[in-house]
Amino acid sequence: MSMTMAEKILARAAGLKETEAGTIVMANIDVAMTHDLTGPLSVNSFQKIGVEKVWDPEKIVVLFDHQVPADSLEAAQNHIFMREFVEKQEINNFYDVNEGVCHQVLPEKGHVIPGEVIVGTDSHTCTHGALGAFATGIGSTDMAMVFATGKLWFKVPETIKFDIEGELGKHVYSKDVILDIIGQIGADGATYQACEFGGETTRNMSISERMALCNMAIEMGGKTGMVEVDEKTRNYLKGRTNKSYEVFQTDEDAESLSTMYVDVSDLEPQVACPHNVDNVKPVGEVEGTPIDQVFLGSCTNGRLEDLRVAAKIMKGKQVSSKVRMLVIPASREIYRQALDEGLMNIFVDSGALVCNPCCGPCLGGHVGLLGPGEVSLSTSNRNFKGRQGSPEAEVYLSSAAVAAASAIRGEIADPR
Amino acid sequence: MSMTMAEKILARAAGLKETEAGTIVMANIDVAMTHDLTGPLSVNSFQKIGVEKVWDPEKIVVLFDHQVPADSLEAAQNHIFMREFVEKQEINNFYDVNEGVCHQVLPEKGHVIPGEVIVGTDSHTCTHGALGAFATGIGSTDMAMVFATGKLWFKVPETIKFDIEGELGKHVYSKDVILDIIGQIGADGATYQACEFGGETTRNMSISERMALCNMAIEMGGKTGMVEVDEKTRNYLKGRTNKSYEVFQTDEDAESLSTMYVDVSDLEPQVACPHNVDNVKPVGEVEGTPIDQVFLGSCTNGRLEDLRVAAKIMKGKQVSSKVRMLVIPASREIYRQALDEGLMNIFVDSGALVCNPCCGPCLGGHVGLLGPGEVSLSTSNRNFKGRQGSPEAEVYLSSAAVAAASAIRGEIADPR
Repeated sequence: MSMTMAEKILARAAGLKETEAGTIVMANIDVAMTHDLTGPLSVNSFQKIGVEKVWDPEKIVVLFDHQVPADSLEAAQNHIFMREFVEKQEINNFYDVNEGVCHQVLPEKGHVIPGEVIVGTDSHTCTHGALGAFATGIGSTDMAMVFATGKLWFKVPETIKFDIEGELGKHVYSKDVILDIIGQIGADGATYQACEFGGETTRNMSISERMALCNMAIEMGGKTGMVEVDEKTRNYLKGRTNKSYEVFQTDEDAESLSTMYVDVSDLEPQVACPHNVDNVKPVGEVEGTPIDQVFLGSCTNGRLEDLRVAAKIMKGKQVSSKVRMLVIPASREIYRQALDEGLMNIFVDSGALVCNPCCGPCLGGHVGLLGPGEVSLSTSNRNFKGRQGSPEAEVYLSSAAVAAASAIRGEIADPR
Repeated sequence: MSMTMAEKILARAAGLKETEAGTIVMANIDVAMTHDLTGPLSVNSFQKIGVEKVWDPEKIVVLFDHQVPADSLEAAQNHIFMREFVEKQEINNFYDVNEGVCHQVLPEKGHVIPGEVIVGTDSHTCTHGALGAFATGIGSTDMAMVFATGKLWFKVPETIKFDIEGELGKHVYSKDVILDIIGQIGADGATYQACEFGGETTRNMSISERMALCNMAIEMGGKTGMVEVDEKTRNYLKGRTNKSYEVFQTDEDAESLSTMYVDVSDLEPQVACPHNVDNVKPVGEVEGTPIDQVFLGSCTNGRLEDLRVAAKIMKGKQVSSKVRMLVIPASREIYRQALDEGLMNIFVDSGALVCNPCCGPCLGGHVGLLGPGEVSLSTSNRNFKGRQGSPEAEVYLSSAAVAAASAIRGEIADPR
């Protein structure tokens, strides 16, 4: 039977030879991730089940990234609560306040393996599909079930394959591609679909760029984002994991497969405008919009390549006095690499504020909230009302290049 | 008439030939500093006075350091409020979220001039006396009066001169000296005194070390901390200010002068234990105390020299898995210098979390709060109950060297 990558992975995880979209399968979970914000909810639910020990501590990853370092008494208490859980359950895959954003740290530390099923109590868990896994965000009560049994039910999703073709122009990146796609099909355009990104353009993208694509699958309603394993995937995994893995590919004649052709040859830098992620316009249409804050970071675009692109644009220039710019590397590894390459010097010299690796303003937590009437340009993934602070603030989403150019100019600018 | 340095400066600022301790003088203010936390209170009080314009915008410095970047909607609104005030009042000396801690940024940017009277709505404004100024913390309503008139009344303080003699041993720093003094005379041992630090040991100290001394004058009740201007002061000021300045020295026979002789030749590293700054013990007596968090930073010990000392101890070593360590440079300038010297690489490699320049956990704001039962070792200046989070947490205070050695060991350790 012809199947999609998503179907094949879920069949494998459910111990079935085959399955098809629409079927309910009970899958064995390979990796279960929870963090400081949703972890306590998951653990509380788990404790209510009454099972003493988690099914397999080696398959659980706990990480702090949303409220780090603890920004409130409540956060400090949540951290203590989770550290106690980790110790009691003998969970070795624990990353305290100092490692960075879960969706970056997991692949870095070798927890993302092609062909595996990864669940996390965070909607952007779909990022990991960039390495050929089936990865998706789940709720805390579902996670309690996973902690107790190692299993979770899934309705097998249909697959929409984005066949991305054409060479990206100067200062056009995967973020622009995914914003363009979401702008075309809408925030509910891929509801419960496995969003598989393919085509020559995807194959030419780095793993970082593919992560940005998959990261935003959820922003069009997708169940997961995925990219087929290739040489780049294998190179990324080298030195990060010794685990063997199975590679699954979508059969072209799979029944549940639909394909969308995306030509990016003439694509311009894109900006998602307030207050919806699918309110996407070419940067030219919003050029000159005054901004108060620029955020370079997040699980979407806080990777080394993003910092490089921004630093190149900002080198020797000053952030506009009208703007405050926050640079937040997605992980300690990225921070370290950025130090080595002298990127931090460039940012600090330009007047940008370099913060510790964390989720930053993306979730409107405790780092760089917007006040009423303020406007932010952000490389993150969501811009609904109130996402980064006041409901009377406005958030534009863009690539690192647009963000950097705009920080210098003090208004939304075309990096080209 | 023989006078102290404090008396001479206040007399000069009040337009008097002489004055003496106990007298009330109305002094002209040379520099008035306010920040994001107390600024809105000061401005609100100022607006109630009904004066349209501040007396002299060039003498006002506004800076954001306590809640940076904005950690809450309230902070974001306060920042907006202060930015509007700065713009309306045409205050050029404005430092947004990206510059660092006020008591470090003011001297760096040339706002601290010997012989001048500096007031700030922050208790550690006394730090600036390290450059031979008379600097003190004031309340927000007093600041409103200063904004309106440029004047403020002072009861001229008596002076206690700490004649510090002896060579400091290995890994004994000015922080140990000031903790030793406070331990000896108590948290109210210098109430309303101008605390003048002198003697051969003080003269041998760098400006950074002198700042740490003066910074903690308030912790023993002092009105201000002061050090006589010398060649080191002049060198520090070069390139930071072109302003001419008058140098004042305490006459040895000044009537209001008392002297305390402090021999530091045999001084060991000191630690202030919970929950009082004057509960000071040699590190040996608390060695082995388990800790959860180490904070290297603050207006007391977040300077380049502190980072250098810590980095030297931590190089090639790992922060204990039992401890999270926060490294928070006091300013962007320090951050930049630390980048140049490769200190950040050492910290990040060791597993420490490097945060953006700000007040950090010192005030129990939004960076690294302690939960109930947690223990912190901190290079900052206060350890009363609840200062860094939960009232059920404990805070020990130490030098950067003790902090670094303890972070590696996972318990309070002697750096020697």
